Amino acid sequence: METVAWAPNGALRIVDQRKLPAELVMRDLSSVAEVADAIRSLAVRGAPAIGVAAAMGLAAAASAESGRGRTSAGGAPGAAELTTAEMRAFIEAGAAVLRGARPTAVNLMWAMDRMLAALRETSGDAEALVRAMRDEAERIRVEDVAMCEALGRHGRTLLKDGMRVLTHCNAGALATAGMGTALAPLYIAKAEGLSIEVFADETRPLLQGARLTAWELSRAQIPVTIITDSMAASLMAAGKVDIVLVGADRIAANGDAANKIGTYGLAVLARHHKIPFVVVAPSSSIDREIASGAEIPIEQRAVEEVTHLAGAALAAVGAQVHNPAFDVTPATLITHIVTEDGVLCAPYHFDRATLPLPPA
Amino acid sequence: METVAWAPNGALRIVDQRKLPAELVMRDLSSVAEVADAIRSLAVRGAPAIGVAAAMGLAAAASAESGRGRTSAGGAPGAAELTTAEMRAFIEAGAAVLRGARPTAVNLMWAMDRMLAALRETSGDAEALVRAMRDEAERIRVEDVAMCEALGRHGRTLLKDGMRVLTHCNAGALATAGMGTALAPLYIAKAEGLSIEVFADETRPLLQGARLTAWELSRAQIPVTIITDSMAASLMAAGKVDIVLVGADRIAANGDAANKIGTYGLAVLARHHKIPFVVVAPSSSIDREIASGAEIPIEQRAVEEVTHLAGAALAAVGAQVHNPAFDVTPATLITHIVTEDGVLCAPYHFDRATLPLPPA
Repeated sequence: METVAWAPNGALRIVDQRKLPAELVMRDLSSVAEVADAIRSLAVRGAPAIGVAAAMGLAAAASAESGRGRTSAGGAPGAAELTTAEMRAFIEAGAAVLRGARPTAVNLMWAMDRMLAALRETSGDAEALVRAMRDEAERIRVEDVAMCEALGRHGRTLLKDGMRVLTHCNAGALATAGMGTALAPLYIAKAEGLSIEVFADETRPLLQGARLTAWELSRAQIPVTIITDSMAASLMAAGKVDIVLVGADRIAANGDAANKIGTYGLAVLARHHKIPFVVVAPSSSIDREIASGAEIPIEQRAVEEVTHLAGAALAAVGAQVHNPAFDVTPATLITHIVTEDGVLCAPYHFDRATLPLPPA
Repeated sequence: METVAWAPNGALRIVDQRKLPAELVMRDLSSVAEVADAIRSLAVRGAPAIGVAAAMGLAAAASAESGRGRTSAGGAPGAAELTTAEMRAFIEAGAAVLRGARPTAVNLMWAMDRMLAALRETSGDAEALVRAMRDEAERIRVEDVAMCEALGRHGRTLLKDGMRVLTHCNAGALATAGMGTALAPLYIAKAEGLSIEVFADETRPLLQGARLTAWELSRAQIPVTIITDSMAASLMAAGKVDIVLVGADRIAANGDAANKIGTYGLAVLARHHKIPFVVVAPSSSIDREIASGAEIPIEQRAVEEVTHLAGAALAAVGAQVHNPAFDVTPATLITHIVTEDGVLCAPYHFDRATLPLPPA
């Protein structure tokens, strides 16, 4: 099962995560509007997967647009082929639309920056631009798979046989093109024969923990117990949690991390119970341009995510509803940040100066 | 709207809280089995309401049994009237069944103790026993209404105009025969013209906050905003919560308090953010026989409460599910316990010796 992949016709093929765990449905997308809608509606979700899907989707849309150009004039050869300038403009406009689909996901911005840089570096005709987009998107996908494995290897060093791990939302294979971020260490540990048990917060409002994390861990034969978000504290008090592993949607230069709503509360609870709280995320989630989490925009989502479920009304009419998608955990509560480069300890300093210098 | 009341025919009339907020449905119950089922299935819930409903239900069942006795033999007058001993045995057996319906609710045990004490003190025929049960149940109901008002008046002293209150589950009018426990101070404050805003945790798995607290506060025109349980921490970090008010199902002699799952986590979060955390509960919730919260039995409920909602499956198959109904908040995290006697400050000592001595 690959969360994001190429379809045989060059479209972006995604697992439609809104249908899980009831059904495993694949969808092929080949327009910017379809890809943006899939991101906005959480058919594809998880910061790394969003970045990869947006890059692959942009390439697939450019390819489809190129094909459409040739056939829209009744098949007259070359009649409506896009000029190089038109294709360039199409890709740039597409990248702008995709950027707007999830404002908090820095990986999305990073993936679009990579695609536009590749576009700028490419000369040649419209077809050459389409090829450059495919190549860059494929590189991003392959790098994501390798990144997940590196996160897994580094995160694995924090695990011991018999540990009980608490996680929130889904930072697994379904959130990446590879084996996941926060769940990657569990897959590596499982492959090495360690016995690890997982508690998965159900993660209201959209239940990614109960639906997705529980689904993918069960499939991988890793024992997983679903709890409501409100049960984590009493599990910790009972001594049943050895470590908390979560992903991140955006990490500021000081290590403050934005992740699914509820993550910050877990970090406070972990500190109170003296349990290590670990963020596992690729360096593409680090936004070195912002000093702290206070600068991370928090997406407010539709109230119906809270008040309705599967079309049924859950809540009293007449009440207001608050539905932020993310919260920010201050770096002081994060024991380690694991990236593909290794296990970092507080204090964190993700300065621009630490970036490798471009070749002279 | 009265949560528990007498029907004109002497049955126990309850608001069926499983139907809220979609419909306001009343049900009349006149057998022990019906009342126990209503308690077990949470048609009636909230520690004080359970105690009152069990007492009134036991009285209603005794009354109905007495009537059934007269008519079961085809109407032959007096043919099958219950003997005094039979009625006494019927009431004692009924009390035992009702005690088993919610093991954590100390008010239920307390109400049954009161009813059995009244039974022991009554002489006379079966009809006299039935009358004694009705009288004692009515006293328990009226005392509950007065207790709520006293809780409200004392708790009100902790509120100031403009305060933002966070609450969990439903400790309101729907949880008592009167105006509630933790919500009573809000009703008193509203009546005095104070402007108070409430955040209601939705309270998974059964959503008593979104369904019941939001419903009754909206009806009373107190502004209320529903949040998922996982949002409380970020609201506190944003400085949007001035005080946390919750109820309790059972309080140990040292002040440790069992309440709806998720309460303990809120108490840890409130401490971290230096926000007062206040338990509002009648003294009938205090179990002076147990030294600490470690002795409070925690009811484990059906996994379907977590995995299903309105008949729809929410969670991946193959995962385990954990569903404790309650957690225990240590007294050290409780700023005040408000009872009908006043506002108590830590440390708490609910010794048996502090009980009023019986008249010599």
